[in-house]
Amino acid sequence: MGGKIYVVGIGPGHPSQRTFAAIDAIAKSEVVVGYETYIKLVEDLLGGKEVVSAKMRQEVYRAEVSIAKALEGKTVALVSDGDPQVFGMAPLLFEMLAKRGISVDVEVVPGVTAALAAGARLGSPLGSDFVVLNLSPLLTPEDVILHRALKAAEGDFVIALYNPIDSGLLRRVLEVVKAVRGPSTPVGVVKNAYREGEAVKITTLGEVDVDEVDMRTILIVGNSETFVWGSYMITPRGYSRKYRL
Amino acid sequence: MGGKIYVVGIGPGHPSQRTFAAIDAIAKSEVVVGYETYIKLVEDLLGGKEVVSAKMRQEVYRAEVSIAKALEGKTVALVSDGDPQVFGMAPLLFEMLAKRGISVDVEVVPGVTAALAAGARLGSPLGSDFVVLNLSPLLTPEDVILHRALKAAEGDFVIALYNPIDSGLLRRVLEVVKAVRGPSTPVGVVKNAYREGEAVKITTLGEVDVDEVDMRTILIVGNSETFVWGSYMITPRGYSRKYRL
Repeated sequence: MGGKIYVVGIGPGHPSQRTFAAIDAIAKSEVVVGYETYIKLVEDLLGGKEVVSAKMRQEVYRAEVSIAKALEGKTVALVSDGDPQVFGMAPLLFEMLAKRGISVDVEVVPGVTAALAAGARLGSPLGSDFVVLNLSPLLTPEDVILHRALKAAEGDFVIALYNPIDSGLLRRVLEVVKAVRGPSTPVGVVKNAYREGEAVKITTLGEVDVDEVDMRTILIVGNSETFVWGSYMITPRGYSRKYRL
Repeated sequence: MGGKIYVVGIGPGHPSQRTFAAIDAIAKSEVVVGYETYIKLVEDLLGGKEVVSAKMRQEVYRAEVSIAKALEGKTVALVSDGDPQVFGMAPLLFEMLAKRGISVDVEVVPGVTAALAAGARLGSPLGSDFVVLNLSPLLTPEDVILHRALKAAEGDFVIALYNPIDSGLLRRVLEVVKAVRGPSTPVGVVKNAYREGEAVKITTLGEVDVDEVDMRTILIVGNSETFVWGSYMITPRGYSRKYRL
């Protein structure tokens, strides 16, 4: 009785980017469940715990196990990288609980999501209103993704692109945005932010090389005011409309 | 010589929501600069440091002081709540450095931004593509805000609304979204997430009470699939299109 599931965001990967609450939730848990890559990222915290490490695309299984263990009365940490809401395990877990009518105590522990991590490495591209858009076509139909890319471009939002696993789709999304915003728009390309093999590059919509992008890459497309200064990509908040900077 | 500015995100407010990197950056700094409310949130970390605590709307001054101290060779922590890019101090600092052609070593330390904090308290409303939209009309013209609200609604994005300081504008933004998405769309209203006086409420676009909202409130408007289950607001990621949950 009295089981509980912490859905824990461990941040971009490096231990320094974890919150104290994330560490604490894992410390309190008897069982830790996660994708094998994320389990490795918290290896230092697993001493004496039951660990359920699962392959990619076994998200339903990971949620299943977490629910089953919690129903046995155990405290479970279900870990996601970044933030667990943002294309992580939290929405799936809640959806399964709701569909099945299972009542379990759940606490979501937020984390630094990949857009914030990539943005910090680029300088400050997320300085104005922005969109977070998932490019994985596994769960969202491609026409929805392209429609959202268009609306994001029309709204002059900065656009953070997650999970560019399909290079054809990424190319089409970038074309949609380029048609609205023009080829000189800055694009930040960040691979493995705060992890081994980190690589940061600033390019433009006209010159971005889709073949350099892999699934561990976040792209941030600037809005109409975003500019590059030295090695920094910067989106103004609007102070220059009001103050002499 | 060799000054440095850390632009530090301290997260939503409670010490447990800070990252280790944020603590470390403040520990390494000789000077800590910030809005007086944020300075209070890190009071436990200030021992022996020079502290520059500034009033609201003195953002240019805060950046000025940070730059001046760094040019004296000091290490400075310029603190923002949440993440420093997201309507925090990072974009202004970079813009001032760029405009003035001043070269200083700057490191952005990301943090848990308010949308993630509010979302965690609501369950998982940010489970699909979302927009982060600042409702303060101080730096962005109102027509731009309303245009972005419309595009966000048309793109069926979840919408996180920051800084609802102008209740008339908030009302107009919610009307724009409601006209596209309908009055039964769930809305999460979170005041003081992870701070004293935290209050969480789930309502709808048809019933949201704008007079209950203050500047310390984040609103999250669901997309067309967002639903409420018990005390949770949930936006599916799309697994039910592929799996039997």
